[in-house]
Amino acid sequence: MLDEERRHLIEEECGVFGILGNEEAANHTYLGLHALQHRGQESAGIATTIAGDHNMYVQRRQGLVSEQFTEDVLSRLPGDAAIGHVRYSTSGESAIRNAQPISVSTKYGPIALAHNGNLTNAGALRAKLESQGSIFGTTTDTEVIAHLIAKSLADNMLDAIIDALNQVQGAFSLVCLTPEFMIGLRDPNGVRPLCVGHLDGARVVSSEPTSFTLMGASFERELEPGEMFVTYRDGTEKWMEPFRKQTPTPCIFELVYFSRPDSTVFGRDVYGVRKRMGNILARESGVEADVVVPVPDSGVPAALGFAQESGVPYEVGLVRSHYVGRTFIEPSSQIRHFGVKLKLSPVQSVLEGKRVVVVDDSIVRGTTSRKIIKMVREAGAKEVHFRVASPQTTHPCFYGIDTPERSQLIAASHSLEEIRKYITADTLAYLSIKGLREAVSTNTEDGQSGFCEACFTGDYPIPLASNDRKKAAEEPGKEKVEATVGEPGEMVGAPPAE
Amino acid sequence: MLDEERRHLIEEECGVFGILGNEEAANHTYLGLHALQHRGQESAGIATTIAGDHNMYVQRRQGLVSEQFTEDVLSRLPGDAAIGHVRYSTSGESAIRNAQPISVSTKYGPIALAHNGNLTNAGALRAKLESQGSIFGTTTDTEVIAHLIAKSLADNMLDAIIDALNQVQGAFSLVCLTPEFMIGLRDPNGVRPLCVGHLDGARVVSSEPTSFTLMGASFERELEPGEMFVTYRDGTEKWMEPFRKQTPTPCIFELVYFSRPDSTVFGRDVYGVRKRMGNILARESGVEADVVVPVPDSGVPAALGFAQESGVPYEVGLVRSHYVGRTFIEPSSQIRHFGVKLKLSPVQSVLEGKRVVVVDDSIVRGTTSRKIIKMVREAGAKEVHFRVASPQTTHPCFYGIDTPERSQLIAASHSLEEIRKYITADTLAYLSIKGLREAVSTNTEDGQSGFCEACFTGDYPIPLASNDRKKAAEEPGKEKVEATVGEPGEMVGAPPAE
Amino acid sequence: MLDEERRHLIEEECGVFGILGNEEAANHTYLGLHALQHRGQESAGIATTIAGDHNMYVQRRQGLVSEQFTEDVLSRLPGDAAIGHVRYSTSGESAIRNAQPISVSTKYGPIALAHNGNLTNAGALRAKLESQGSIFGTTTDTEVIAHLIAKSLADNMLDAIIDALNQVQGAFSLVCLTPEFMIGLRDPNGVRPLCVGHLDGARVVSSEPTSFTLMGASFERELEPGEMFVTYRDGTEKWMEPFRKQTPTPCIFELVYFSRPDSTVFGRDVYGVRKRMGNILARESGVEADVVVPVPDSGVPAALGFAQESGVPYEVGLVRSHYVGRTFIEPSSQIRHFGVKLKLSPVQSVLEGKRVVVVDDSIVRGTTSRKIIKMVREAGAKEVHFRVASPQTTHPCFYGIDTPERSQLIAASHSLEEIRKYITADTLAYLSIKGLREAVSTNTEDGQSGFCEACFTGDYPIPLASNDRKKAAEEPGKEKVEATVGEPGEMVGAPPAE
Amino acid sequence: MLDEERRHLIEEECGVFGILGNEEAANHTYLGLHALQHRGQESAGIATTIAGDHNMYVQRRQGLVSEQFTEDVLSRLPGDAAIGHVRYSTSGESAIRNAQPISVSTKYGPIALAHNGNLTNAGALRAKLESQGSIFGTTTDTEVIAHLIAKSLADNMLDAIIDALNQVQGAFSLVCLTPEFMIGLRDPNGVRPLCVGHLDGARVVSSEPTSFTLMGASFERELEPGEMFVTYRDGTEKWMEPFRKQTPTPCIFELVYFSRPDSTVFGRDVYGVRKRMGNILARESGVEADVVVPVPDSGVPAALGFAQESGVPYEVGLVRSHYVGRTFIEPSSQIRHFGVKLKLSPVQSVLEGKRVVVVDDSIVRGTTSRKIIKMVREAGAKEVHFRVASPQTTHPCFYGIDTPERSQLIAASHSLEEIRKYITADTLAYLSIKGLREAVSTNTEDGQSGFCEACFTGDYPIPLASNDRKKAAEEPGKEKVEATVGEPGEMVGAPPAE
Repeated sequence: MLDEERRHLIEEECGVFGILGNEEAANHTYLGLHALQHRGQESAGIATTIAGDHNMYVQRRQGLVSEQFTEDVLSRLPGDAAIGHVRYSTSGESAIRNAQPISVSTKYGPIALAHNGNLTNAGALRAKLESQGSIFGTTTDTEVIAHLIAKSLADNMLDAIIDALNQVQGAFSLVCLTPEFMIGLRDPNGVRPLCVGHLDGARVVSSEPTSFTLMGASFERELEPGEMFVTYRDGTEKWMEPFRKQTPTPCIFELVYFSRPDSTVFGRDVYGVRKRMGNILARESGVEADVVVPVPDSGVPAALGFAQESGVPYEVGLVRSHYVGRTFIEPSSQIRHFGVKLKLSPVQSVLEGKRVVVVDDSIVRGTTSRKIIKMVREAGAKEVHFRVASPQTTHPCFYGIDTPERSQLIAASHSLEEIRKYITADTLAYLSIKGLREAVSTNTEDGQSGFCEACFTGDYPIPLASNDRKKAAEEPGKEKVEATVGEPGEMVGAPPAE
Repeated sequence: MLDEERRHLIEEECGVFGILGNEEAANHTYLGLHALQHRGQESAGIATTIAGDHNMYVQRRQGLVSEQFTEDVLSRLPGDAAIGHVRYSTSGESAIRNAQPISVSTKYGPIALAHNGNLTNAGALRAKLESQGSIFGTTTDTEVIAHLIAKSLADNMLDAIIDALNQVQGAFSLVCLTPEFMIGLRDPNGVRPLCVGHLDGARVVSSEPTSFTLMGASFERELEPGEMFVTYRDGTEKWMEPFRKQTPTPCIFELVYFSRPDSTVFGRDVYGVRKRMGNILARESGVEADVVVPVPDSGVPAALGFAQESGVPYEVGLVRSHYVGRTFIEPSSQIRHFGVKLKLSPVQSVLEGKRVVVVDDSIVRGTTSRKIIKMVREAGAKEVHFRVASPQTTHPCFYGIDTPERSQLIAASHSLEEIRKYITADTLAYLSIKGLREAVSTNTEDGQSGFCEACFTGDYPIPLASNDRKKAAEEPGKEKVEATVGEPGEMVGAPPAE
Repeated sequence: MLDEERRHLIEEECGVFGILGNEEAANHTYLGLHALQHRGQESAGIATTIAGDHNMYVQRRQGLVSEQFTEDVLSRLPGDAAIGHVRYSTSGESAIRNAQPISVSTKYGPIALAHNGNLTNAGALRAKLESQGSIFGTTTDTEVIAHLIAKSLADNMLDAIIDALNQVQGAFSLVCLTPEFMIGLRDPNGVRPLCVGHLDGARVVSSEPTSFTLMGASFERELEPGEMFVTYRDGTEKWMEPFRKQTPTPCIFELVYFSRPDSTVFGRDVYGVRKRMGNILARESGVEADVVVPVPDSGVPAALGFAQESGVPYEVGLVRSHYVGRTFIEPSSQIRHFGVKLKLSPVQSVLEGKRVVVVDDSIVRGTTSRKIIKMVREAGAKEVHFRVASPQTTHPCFYGIDTPERSQLIAASHSLEEIRKYITADTLAYLSIKGLREAVSTNTEDGQSGFCEACFTGDYPIPLASNDRKKAAEEPGKEKVEATVGEPGEMVGAPPAE
Repeated sequence: MLDEERRHLIEEECGVFGILGNEEAANHTYLGLHALQHRGQESAGIATTIAGDHNMYVQRRQGLVSEQFTEDVLSRLPGDAAIGHVRYSTSGESAIRNAQPISVSTKYGPIALAHNGNLTNAGALRAKLESQGSIFGTTTDTEVIAHLIAKSLADNMLDAIIDALNQVQGAFSLVCLTPEFMIGLRDPNGVRPLCVGHLDGARVVSSEPTSFTLMGASFERELEPGEMFVTYRDGTEKWMEPFRKQTPTPCIFELVYFSRPDSTVFGRDVYGVRKRMGNILARESGVEADVVVPVPDSGVPAALGFAQESGVPYEVGLVRSHYVGRTFIEPSSQIRHFGVKLKLSPVQSVLEGKRVVVVDDSIVRGTTSRKIIKMVREAGAKEVHFRVASPQTTHPCFYGIDTPERSQLIAASHSLEEIRKYITADTLAYLSIKGLREAVSTNTEDGQSGFCEACFTGDYPIPLASNDRKKAAEEPGKEKVEATVGEPGEMVGAPPAE
């Protein structure tokens, strides 16, 4: 899946980082966020505190960490404790208004919050809080949490945080900073990842361990679902499980697409999982072909797995440009339509006259897949077999990914054959849900992977708001093509007659 | 008083504007704020609403209205109702965080607030609100008002606003915007100005009528102290006096320095008042001299008045550069000290061999006056007589000007003679408080001007917070010089013996 | 004359500065150019050399010196010798391409040139040079000079410069820098100013001595017309007169408008000259009035002179905004027409019910004067008498000011009465040419001022290119009004009957 | 080879594009340059002409085409003919001064030139031109060509261009634009590529055909060495061979590293050539290993070739970050050393406990290779075998790549074993020159590849300037390690004893 497609469809995606006990806290948070930049490229923020000082220092910017957090900006973030956040968001001032960490002053003192995930009862809580006289300056779930903390009757900040989080539902990996302590925690379902490590004497937490690798910190372990870790400035630490227990349902899409291939998430080596998806996909939907080509970069491990399993050679048939910046401005009506072509180029010598298997991690709307297949055909491919290393994405996520409407998801309303026709593939196959489960976990005998697979199955493990329930259930109109229905895991289409 | 000095010492200064009923509401607010730019140059903001839509559109920027509010930014501010704000503030993200209008969502719906002034019980209210579970994202008084509105038990937004404002004390000229109405109001003491006008069918409110002149609106009148004006989208209007009555005490410093010379404020023609200050100053502290020279631009009207009264010719002996931008960056240690010289240049032919009267509106720390006198002497002046068109500034303001500490005010801790020596004038005189009262009002028989003169007298008409009371009363250390004490209104020093 | 009008009409205006022998050469050039910023605000440049190094370091930027030459930019300008340039120019890359100093490599080594003025035979020389195989990368006269230097048969750089300049005609005050020496020189007619001073051991040259005042350098004297000053890195100096002698004809418009009021130019105190223009204008064209009001800032000294001579009180009836930046962007069609109003505001209390004399230094197109008079009338003035402190501007300048076409000059095609009607003044009078001569020089018995007055008389002291001759002579169409002709120095119009 | 390393060592690298006969000439040049961005990322420029107009419109910017050439910039480039250029260069204004296309005015009219390559006699020509009175405003070879054109005695521009180019030696693929025609040509040695195509009725030329693919133009063919193609606005075309014949010696490094893998250059499919380098490298220097890992992205095709030939699985063991922008600012001393780590991350699951073959296209200084091996070892690799898909880079390029000094090339002064020790590989092998020749061309029986291989052999096919000859021959000091010498093509080091 190309960033371009992702940018239009996935509204919310985040990464969080925290460190306590290092004199260069802001600089390390800069590094930690840089390593999480794939989780959100639109805005970034860092909040710091100084020992013995009740101020919260905050800098938030639109743009990449490495471009926005200059030495000058970092110099305004003193102290030995810091938390940070990267996220996607829409442009304009509202983007900055909703940027995180949010920093508020409460009766318990100042607190900064950086949140990855999405609350399912945020709307209800917000309505209740407003009716009780609360004001909201942002549209973030995180501000709801801040209000709940401030309105708690608990004796101290820590208890107030626990109190607040026991009122929320949904997905939340959260990092909090106060002048006294830093907290990292995962919701009871453990939807989003969070891991803990050491950097010399300092404590570090991060959405993914790749942050630790970059700064030379050691990875200790992932937090368990529902686990909360508190590290105090005085050196003491607490590990708690303060929430009602739930059956853990980590997000399987973290393994499919979100997390970095060099990360270990939910106890799985991400690169290995993705290669296995490719292996299984090849077993499920192998096809006579000359070459396996990934959609870079997210399709690379699955394509390698497909190639190794099938024996069809892996080749780099699509070259990605490194020069399409975030600030790319489409200069004229004619150029406006060059989207995918500005980012990908076909390698004719790899594709010409070949039967090509194109492997991608997922399909959202299908428009990019269609353009890629067109490009591959124009380079001379004789056949194009599209293979998707995950099942059909049929349902929106309400736990931190926020695909806005079912109607945007081609697989929500179209059969396999319809999709194949739309993207103009000779054959099309998705990984089956069974294959996906096998890829993420060797033991699938109970038919359950223990993951949230709602985007593929519509089976939402955490109750949705009624509003969202409706969105999840509504039958999207079938606008594009009329055709017979294929089965998931099944291959449709056939090679053209020789 | 040069901007440079002002920038370091006066932390808060604001202007507000509002319009309802014009299709180019944001554009007119742009013009209105441009005409109020002298009241605050560090940040500016505009909030708008569209009829029949519950959104609040807000854009806030650091910098000048005319540079920051480009066509692109204005295009994101749709609707026929808008309010705006200009202010001083410190740099960095915190500046933007505290920028106004603030816009919040409440149980009554969205509201935007633009506030000129300072609440004296903001700290107490904030502490109480925090103890009740409110969170604060800014350090502004305006957020306190927003919380009080949201927590009101009133039935509707308008009553909630009245309820909230009956709980606050201090100086506040306020403009509020909701999807249904726009409000303009002055606190019962009427410390800060606010006036009302018409622009064709639309209603306009502004800190000063100079906004109306610019856009061709007609000036109707100033709001009375404690008066509140509500104009609804449906065309109806209300004029109310919903607050406890107080003896009005408008800020005399608005006439001395803040307001534009072309404005009418508190029923006075500002230019005329300033000229009269110069007239009276000449009568009180005339001196044999060859030329009267203003410190541009704030000293110009008083210098003209001084010259006309004394018969000493008025000349432009100091030329102001128009090319020292807000973004002036001092490029090296050597250039760092050029401050005043980069902004003012002496006209040698006016000053050489002359006995020069230099007239300024006020002295804060005295450092700029000292540099100016040095410059005038280097251009060959034989004598330099410094005349200040207001009394000694001895006390900080807590009603919207916020001179942070008494120790920064040279006149708080130094005698007239000490100041004269420090700034190296041959003679020095301030306008007496009696003279000032005469200048602002022809009828002063009761010995009262009806104005807040706290910065000159320490007599604070609105009760201060205990914290501020201490600051106002504390005896600043005398750090600079030891010398005998002169009397206010008295001239000290003497021309050098020929 | 407001900048706005000037910006549209005057295409070329420059200031130059140089220093040799100071370790902070670039920093001082920064200061020197800041003090000359009124001579050109669109681009600025600095070139430096290091002793014992054959490189030329050059930085050129669009915008104000104080905003563009940051510490970072200055740090790229090492060395103890520097020259600089400020100029007007149109926007876009071409502006930067034509920015100065120009720096070229020649057979004599590198040289940088900063030029104030305009060559009258540049076109002919350029055509000849091109026909001989020269290439031109800019459209500046300065590049012509560089080519002539490089093509000289002289033995060394200094002789080549002299050789080159003996081939050019027109106005040129020039500063040159090579690794060995710095040169300052004025053309034989001495059209543009240039002065020389000392800063400790270093030599400084500048278009106006106001640069020296700012940096604390001492003013030695102005260069004579045709004089050339060479200062070598080894401490030696040469004063030469290497050009064919001409009758000096310095530009009288430098005294009327260009130079800063605090400067001494062509041996005259500029502020004093301008006041005398006002004095004489009052004697020539006095009128019964209540108040004299300048168009700020250029009309101020003449208005003071007018007031003092006439006894009519001087008042600040028009207030200038300091917040209309160079980067002012007009945000919408409605606001686009606010031009003058965004910059000037009327002071109603000064103007209402009054007979007002408005004094400006000159009129170019008349459109701004017309807007100002409208503004003054709307503020309630009973009568508006417009007085111009110079004669009618009837002819374009070809010596460095480049008013592009006669048709843009209202006085080129319209009678005094026609202009009066157009600008809607009750009466209008210009200073007579005789009066101007008297103002600039006490001795005018020979009926000659010794100045170039071509813009007022059409009498061009330096031969023009045939092309320019045509432009100067062509009869501009009379497009605006038809009316009888008034005489220069004569007052037209009459107060309205009571 | 990572960009980072390249940025420090390779000073000059360019791409050129041209189009004539399309109403959106500038927009297409934007696209064409975007597709050539890998050939130079520091500055870009476009020049256009309008039919029937003698102006040349030029915009040059520092930065990426897609970020700098906004709609606003493109709108200043009217016309149906355009040429463009991308290049590397050092920062600062000098970068802009040397940016291309250069545009000059000559006796033949205006011309713009965009040049890829390096002249070997530029210094001598420049000295001669300077001695004849030419001035140089840049340090580019292209300005030398412009001078030669302007000084030609030919009758017209076209003949003057031919005349000029017959005087230069070296590498030059050149695109020229005048109001009448566009030219594309290659030097007689054909060192740099240039190809020709059609876009509907328009003619296009580009350094690589990937530009054509992007815009949907058809590829006609590469220009032959010494061939010149002229396309006139009136639709006529000329194909000429106006230069002295030379034995063609295209740059082999274009195939090794420069050109895009999806391009066809010098009649070779670049991707296929690079894979063959990997195949042959595996045959020459195979090693027992568990995994083959490329240095992304330039090492990818060779690594695939190595893996396919050796049967050792290909894996993505190093992940490249897409978020290290051009404007990356290293924020503190600690972070300053993160260079390679910010760009590459190891995939532990791929590397841990494995015998790893790391494949890169070339080694310049060896510092990056050393850091990569450290990273691979820290991720747990048991053995690291470094394989380089080209021979040792021992000599600087003087034909457009300009590696500044031999002393920077580790292979110029160090034996294979010394390099192996320095980069800390268990074994190290380079592709032999014989292997390289085999990879680029199936027929190598004559022992000659017909390519310029000077960077590997020191055998320079085009005579060098005496100055450059010295640089090429000088014996670089051996600064880093002392060790015995290995042979090219030979593998050094051995797996650690089990």
